[in-house]
Amino acid sequence: MKDCLFCKIVRKEIPAEIVAENTNCIAFKDIDPKAPVHILIIPKKHLGSTLDFTDENSWLLADMGLLSNSISRDLGLHEKGYRWVINTGKAGGQAVDHLHLHLLGGRQMTWPPG
Amino acid sequence: MKDCLFCKIVRKEIPAEIVAENTNCIAFKDIDPKAPVHILIIPKKHLGSTLDFTDENSWLLADMGLLSNSISRDLGLHEKGYRWVINTGKAGGQAVDHLHLHLLGGRQMTWPPG
Repeated sequence: MKDCLFCKIVRKEIPAEIVAENTNCIAFKDIDPKAPVHILIIPKKHLGSTLDFTDENSWLLADMGLLSNSISRDLGLHEKGYRWVINTGKAGGQAVDHLHLHLLGGRQMTWPPG
Repeated sequence: MKDCLFCKIVRKEIPAEIVAENTNCIAFKDIDPKAPVHILIIPKKHLGSTLDFTDENSWLLADMGLLSNSISRDLGLHEKGYRWVINTGKAGGQAVDHLHLHLLGGRQMTWPPG
């Protein structure tokens, strides 16, 4: 998507602190972090939100999860724990219309989750 | 797992307000809801947490997501939006050691997410 902020990061047209990448996904630091570790994992292909998942492309979610796990192990988050958050739509708090998984860790996460 | 609370729900040994079910996953209402809609989606097979995902079983995450989407459409959550949360480990706020995705909706979710 030409004007999508995250597609521009995928194409390296705008800078981001990229922390990991595989064939289908890329991970970079959230510019407004809410925890000592706050990383966004996104599919390189543009999906607007979780509502765009189909039987054919939902494997991307599994791929995002595996990349997140790899990052968690690299950063040592796997020992104490972490939170995954995916917002969909306005009521969910989605701020950029390109599917993204928030990986938050490095502090005790509280409940309720917003 | 014999003594796992959520495995007992899967086996229908203890009651839960089940809202949806497919071959590999089951969804039921959280007993301490933090939003008008607060549903847990879990794999029937026991996985302790997201850290148990491997190349072989991570498709279960996609399956959980698709079941959640089906529920969101049934309940009309897809129009305004919703939040997915998965806690892993103590720092993530994981309360039951059987992988579960929280689907929260029916109100404006806030930021940060706990």
